Amino acid sequence: MAGVPVPVPLDRDAVCELDAADPLAGVRERFVLPLDLIYLDGNSLGALPAAVPAHLYDVVHREWGKDLIRSWNSNGWWEAPLRVGAKLAPIIGAHSNEVVVCDSTSVNIFKLAIAGMRLRPDRRVILAEGGTFPTDHYMLASVAELLGVELRIVPTADLYAAITDEVALVSLTNVDYRTGAIHNLEAVTQLAHDVGAVILWDLAHSAGVLPMNLHDAGADLAVGCGYKFLNGGPGAPAFCYVHEALQDQISQPLPGWLGHVRPFDFEPSFDVAPGMARLLTGTSPILSLLALDAALDAFGDVSMQQVREKSMALTELTLRLVDERVGDSGFGVVSPLDPQLRGSQVSLSHPHAFAITQALIARGVIGDFRTPDILRLGFAPMYVRYVDVWDAVTELDEVMQTKEYLLDRHQARATVT
Amino acid sequence: MAGVPVPVPLDRDAVCELDAADPLAGVRERFVLPLDLIYLDGNSLGALPAAVPAHLYDVVHREWGKDLIRSWNSNGWWEAPLRVGAKLAPIIGAHSNEVVVCDSTSVNIFKLAIAGMRLRPDRRVILAEGGTFPTDHYMLASVAELLGVELRIVPTADLYAAITDEVALVSLTNVDYRTGAIHNLEAVTQLAHDVGAVILWDLAHSAGVLPMNLHDAGADLAVGCGYKFLNGGPGAPAFCYVHEALQDQISQPLPGWLGHVRPFDFEPSFDVAPGMARLLTGTSPILSLLALDAALDAFGDVSMQQVREKSMALTELTLRLVDERVGDSGFGVVSPLDPQLRGSQVSLSHPHAFAITQALIARGVIGDFRTPDILRLGFAPMYVRYVDVWDAVTELDEVMQTKEYLLDRHQARATVT
Repeated sequence: MAGVPVPVPLDRDAVCELDAADPLAGVRERFVLPLDLIYLDGNSLGALPAAVPAHLYDVVHREWGKDLIRSWNSNGWWEAPLRVGAKLAPIIGAHSNEVVVCDSTSVNIFKLAIAGMRLRPDRRVILAEGGTFPTDHYMLASVAELLGVELRIVPTADLYAAITDEVALVSLTNVDYRTGAIHNLEAVTQLAHDVGAVILWDLAHSAGVLPMNLHDAGADLAVGCGYKFLNGGPGAPAFCYVHEALQDQISQPLPGWLGHVRPFDFEPSFDVAPGMARLLTGTSPILSLLALDAALDAFGDVSMQQVREKSMALTELTLRLVDERVGDSGFGVVSPLDPQLRGSQVSLSHPHAFAITQALIARGVIGDFRTPDILRLGFAPMYVRYVDVWDAVTELDEVMQTKEYLLDRHQARATVT
Repeated sequence: MAGVPVPVPLDRDAVCELDAADPLAGVRERFVLPLDLIYLDGNSLGALPAAVPAHLYDVVHREWGKDLIRSWNSNGWWEAPLRVGAKLAPIIGAHSNEVVVCDSTSVNIFKLAIAGMRLRPDRRVILAEGGTFPTDHYMLASVAELLGVELRIVPTADLYAAITDEVALVSLTNVDYRTGAIHNLEAVTQLAHDVGAVILWDLAHSAGVLPMNLHDAGADLAVGCGYKFLNGGPGAPAFCYVHEALQDQISQPLPGWLGHVRPFDFEPSFDVAPGMARLLTGTSPILSLLALDAALDAFGDVSMQQVREKSMALTELTLRLVDERVGDSGFGVVSPLDPQLRGSQVSLSHPHAFAITQALIARGVIGDFRTPDILRLGFAPMYVRYVDVWDAVTELDEVMQTKEYLLDRHQARATVT
């Protein structure tokens, strides 16, 4: 287990010892967690940071209710997209002037994919990886249609070789939502730059859990999600990153008044704002944005390196316990076995994965199912304990022993799960 | 004054009588309003509806904090964009299956402008009116560039004559943000249809204050704002309307996974959802969306016809009192004098409009300034009283008598106001 000594024999008390020695143990108190749950879905919706409710109370009652329209100036609403972006920047290894928070990840992919293509007007190929999160592909297909260029989607095995000097833009997800496999951000950025291509990273499953150095790696463009490992709340606004060396060349397709250099002059022609403000489109959803603002305070003094070490230890422990305790129940391991290549999740395949996920949820172990046959367990190291892994695998063991997943109520597929 | 008998002589007591007789007087209790303000900026940011804080408390503590990811199903987060859209629909005269709440007004203009152009692939002109809200023009210019078509912006005086059979899409604002002038929705929709053009209405300054019948008028497409007269909170999500007869033909340029017919099958190719779900892109900002949800309950039993009658009476009273009490102070009336042609605002021009606005704000009368020389006063009939008009004009009279607007502190222009 990466960096963490594994006790032998491995029993629940020994696992509790790991928590006692965990340098991040105290960070868990920064979150509100239901006592009756083991929450292994922070990669889908991060838990509620304890600082958020009081902050939102103030935003609603005082800022909206009493200060009303004046809050745009007096309470800093205008600056919030850039200010929250600057707060987020160190978590992803960006400079404070390289990040803005706005819109959804999907909308931001559209903006930056077109902006990226416009940086290489002489090339006509967008390269993407097959099997990754579908919105990225839908958006890129729309960009390709609008620009009249080719979207080339290749299988993972062929991906790196497909980064050629035909390619204008490489659009790639840092950590795969389904398998948890990591693309090395520095190395693949270099591959793209070696052939003169621009790279756009989707950090949805890595921001807040994987240490990264976007700026020093020379990454051109990136988007990421506010509501997974950043804990910004359901549908929290997403973020855009643009390397400062490129910002003045960026032309994005959704230019709104807030991206204008003088928004309150209401000028008929668009005169783009300097820096990251040019990525702004319309008015930000302030309540959701300021929930993310308060949520990011939980990262304050936290070392991303320690987060990564605990993340690797949690997923290693999970794989070991799954092997030892339910190894004969028909599970396959979909995630990379090398912890260095694995994000903060463990994906297990099983023919009954859907029903097993439902049976676990009924027992208070919240993971999720991903089509066609994957039980996905996510680990947010800031609030998931080693003992949670032990208890989750214990419940999984009981689900497999009792075969309760065969009950009708666990088999029933809702339209949306 | 439209429909409301005007007392003679007109003094403060007489104006209070108008409030006593106001059928909407009780609706004011549905809002939290600071005691020390006269708030005439609900057309910029609607006041806080009293139902919102308790609802948000529950959403944050129980739905996010305790139910966590399960809330997407158990608390109806998935359905919220369409459910809140259906709640909003009667306010704008749409059918419940014709509205979805998502993204910002700006982003939705982009989606529907491209969708509208794709309905008329044989035509190559987008027609818009000069001088309206600049984001609409920036977005339309971007659409025109991406599609390789012409954006034709014409002065208001030439607008109706410019609706010819060259035009694919007429993009028009129902109520002008600066002057308050109304375009007749039914009549101009008919003008567009007479020449085979599609019409896209921006309802930012009319939704929630002007009775309209989008469906019966045959309006094709519309967008609108959640945070002005709908009181959804700062940066509340916007809405899209598409006439049900057109929905199955709509192809929009920001197709996200939530617009897929089977979002949780994570299919590599985009198979569009039926109905308005196809306008969805990424995950909605749930906190902001559910604030709007609760805010719309304030409309419950309110007659939009009564809202309109009070709106016309409030603006008529304002114009009469401005004329009687500060008529010799150099103000011009920018808004249409005919109340039938005027939205729920009064725009006054003055060489010192900026400083006068600041001086009024310092006295607790909140209106806003719009470049180059406009003092804009907005009237939300659900919570603005006739006596507020009297008191606001009294303060304006004092500002003009004292010439306090000439003080340095009122002259200073912030970068953003």
